[in-house]
Amino acid sequence: MALIVMKFGGTSVANVERIKNVARHVKREVDAGNRVAVVVSAMSGATNQLVSWVREASLLHDAREYDAVVASGEQVTAGILAICLQSIGVSARSWQGWQIPILTDNAHGAARIKDIDGRKLLARLNDGEVAVVTGFQGIEPERQRLATLGRGGSDTSAVALAIALKADLCDIYTDVDGIYTTDPRIVPKARRLSKISYEEMLEMASLGSKVLQTRSVELAMVYKMRTRVLSSFTAPDAMQATSPETWGEIGTIVCSEDEIVEQQVVSGIAYAKDEAKVTLLKIEDKPGVAASVFGPLAEANVNVDMIVQNLSSDGKHTDMTFTVQEAELPRALEVLKGVQKEIGYFDVKSSADVVKVSVIGVGMRSHAGVAAMMFKALAAKGINILAITTSEIKISVLIDANYSELAVRTLHSLYGLDKE
Amino acid sequence: MALIVMKFGGTSVANVERIKNVARHVKREVDAGNRVAVVVSAMSGATNQLVSWVREASLLHDAREYDAVVASGEQVTAGILAICLQSIGVSARSWQGWQIPILTDNAHGAARIKDIDGRKLLARLNDGEVAVVTGFQGIEPERQRLATLGRGGSDTSAVALAIALKADLCDIYTDVDGIYTTDPRIVPKARRLSKISYEEMLEMASLGSKVLQTRSVELAMVYKMRTRVLSSFTAPDAMQATSPETWGEIGTIVCSEDEIVEQQVVSGIAYAKDEAKVTLLKIEDKPGVAASVFGPLAEANVNVDMIVQNLSSDGKHTDMTFTVQEAELPRALEVLKGVQKEIGYFDVKSSADVVKVSVIGVGMRSHAGVAAMMFKALAAKGINILAITTSEIKISVLIDANYSELAVRTLHSLYGLDKE
Repeated sequence: MALIVMKFGGTSVANVERIKNVARHVKREVDAGNRVAVVVSAMSGATNQLVSWVREASLLHDAREYDAVVASGEQVTAGILAICLQSIGVSARSWQGWQIPILTDNAHGAARIKDIDGRKLLARLNDGEVAVVTGFQGIEPERQRLATLGRGGSDTSAVALAIALKADLCDIYTDVDGIYTTDPRIVPKARRLSKISYEEMLEMASLGSKVLQTRSVELAMVYKMRTRVLSSFTAPDAMQATSPETWGEIGTIVCSEDEIVEQQVVSGIAYAKDEAKVTLLKIEDKPGVAASVFGPLAEANVNVDMIVQNLSSDGKHTDMTFTVQEAELPRALEVLKGVQKEIGYFDVKSSADVVKVSVIGVGMRSHAGVAAMMFKALAAKGINILAITTSEIKISVLIDANYSELAVRTLHSLYGLDKE
Repeated sequence: MALIVMKFGGTSVANVERIKNVARHVKREVDAGNRVAVVVSAMSGATNQLVSWVREASLLHDAREYDAVVASGEQVTAGILAICLQSIGVSARSWQGWQIPILTDNAHGAARIKDIDGRKLLARLNDGEVAVVTGFQGIEPERQRLATLGRGGSDTSAVALAIALKADLCDIYTDVDGIYTTDPRIVPKARRLSKISYEEMLEMASLGSKVLQTRSVELAMVYKMRTRVLSSFTAPDAMQATSPETWGEIGTIVCSEDEIVEQQVVSGIAYAKDEAKVTLLKIEDKPGVAASVFGPLAEANVNVDMIVQNLSSDGKHTDMTFTVQEAELPRALEVLKGVQKEIGYFDVKSSADVVKVSVIGVGMRSHAGVAAMMFKALAAKGINILAITTSEIKISVLIDANYSELAVRTLHSLYGLDKE
């Protein structure tokens, strides 16, 4: 029998009725003989309510007090789930981060887990008691104050707890039934992946696929914790209990590359709509000009993603294009206007009507020609590429937003991802 | 300058706007040089919401999990108040019961405070920082689980904290501006008392006056903690800061009898509407019959208050009347029906249309004739007395509910309590 961590997010515990459903998922695992620790988020909406009260109190606020307020949400869910479990005959108790303890650094509001002492929990698990643990939070040991991990932090809590308990598997229950080759709302032929490598999942997560928090995937990768994404909305009785033999039958397992036998060259197509394009016209073509543009942006905490610098036509001036997060565009333009004289550009243009489409796959490392195929296929559909970035396992292109669905569908077919 | 504890109940912190108002009350005291610890309840309605979720999860539930859920309400208020204080330039931090720690016994859901270690708090207070403390809760040291004190427990938290910190005064801010000689809604001539003795307050509290929780008054009495009741809805700027010289000018101070210079014979008239009367008809008049009635009721946790046994007319049978809390009447009747054969009574009658009116005053100890005056005055108005109980400082009569206002007004005038 296995030791498993099961994590349930805000929509899965949105009300008491759903928490009872979660209890039935947990009971299924306990009845099969598994030892189970459950990590829960706040009830959907609860955290937003708490955050809005804090903001109403003061827009500028002590992050330690923010944490004390916001951490209460998970405390409520954990207690209620423990009661629901007990009421269906499952021995259970709730644990708040500080009771375990889950130790964090002092970056309140966006803290990182430093250590989890799993001994007390393990002793209880071995006695057959389910541990219901508050996600998203821990305690900063120096001052003994509550600390939260930032939005989506419960995924990270779950993976970190699984590592501390040396669990066999970390099951992330969410509102989708796995990771798909692309967004099924755009491409009906999208397939659920039964496995995906940590590296690929990390690219997916950082490209805006909100299924798993980036930090949780990083942690799973470093400690090789097998993490599975599956749906909490599947009826608890309709699922088999977790066992090493049947892990791959539902959901998507995020695991090491070498566990994936039939590795495709490309595993998935991702897209991100929240990009914005900035073009500096007639910028001086001289050494150090890039630093004069990107230095001030970095100081203002604007993250620059893709950068394209055209060839100079007259040997003196050029155009420079780069992308930023759409939400950061106003700040970026403000910064650039402030340093126009120093940089010496003629004008600045911007547009949020762009989308970044990415092809992801660890197989690219050993297969040449993936990028060439991509550019050729897009050109054949008349889609203009505005910028390109690549990593070892990813090729991203920036295109006009009007072509995003066409591009995603084209690439999904191109790399053989359509289901039969 | 003084060290004071200020306590604010649920209606005083019902929303962020009101919490900002509370912050201004606290700032007034800090600006005057007082060291301040604040005790807060959950936002009005929050505890009810949490309790209803717990009940929805399971009507029978683990009291430790109930406590883990319900204790979150005060955590929210404390954090928000700390932020509001900081935003108006007052140095502050929130403290949860376990962080101080406030140690309780293990009677989860209705725990008693065993000890408070005030050292950490005192060090901060002496540095000029306001401590915002969660009321209603502490930690049970054996298992390190959160424990709550039961409804209204924040008053007790405040008094206990004041004792632990050796505070000069414990100010209970509520939605009334003090303790009155009787309910001003019934008797417009009711006067606010500037002082009342612990003993009298205890009789008031246990008679259903909901201004202070009984346990908090007991605690204040044992440790001689001067406790003041005053309104949080008075504008913060319209009040003077607390100082030993001006304590008596607003609100009501609950203190030792010997601090009250002009002690009246009677301090107040209380009434309780939530009484119900039970009469057992033709019960056998033999030794042990009282035990056969009240034994089973006590086992079922029904509290019996007043008891009247009529004289036997035939030497064999009698009628017995007693009162219980209205809410416990159905349970009481069920118990009595279950043991009818054993007790041997002919029939049982009950009515909730009764009211208990009480005259309270420590001066009664040294003044004879207070009771006689009362009975005579009620008789003169044609009010029939159904039952009587007395203590050293209280006389209570049970009367028909229709006469309750008349009785209260009559007695209020009789003992010279009407304001000029």
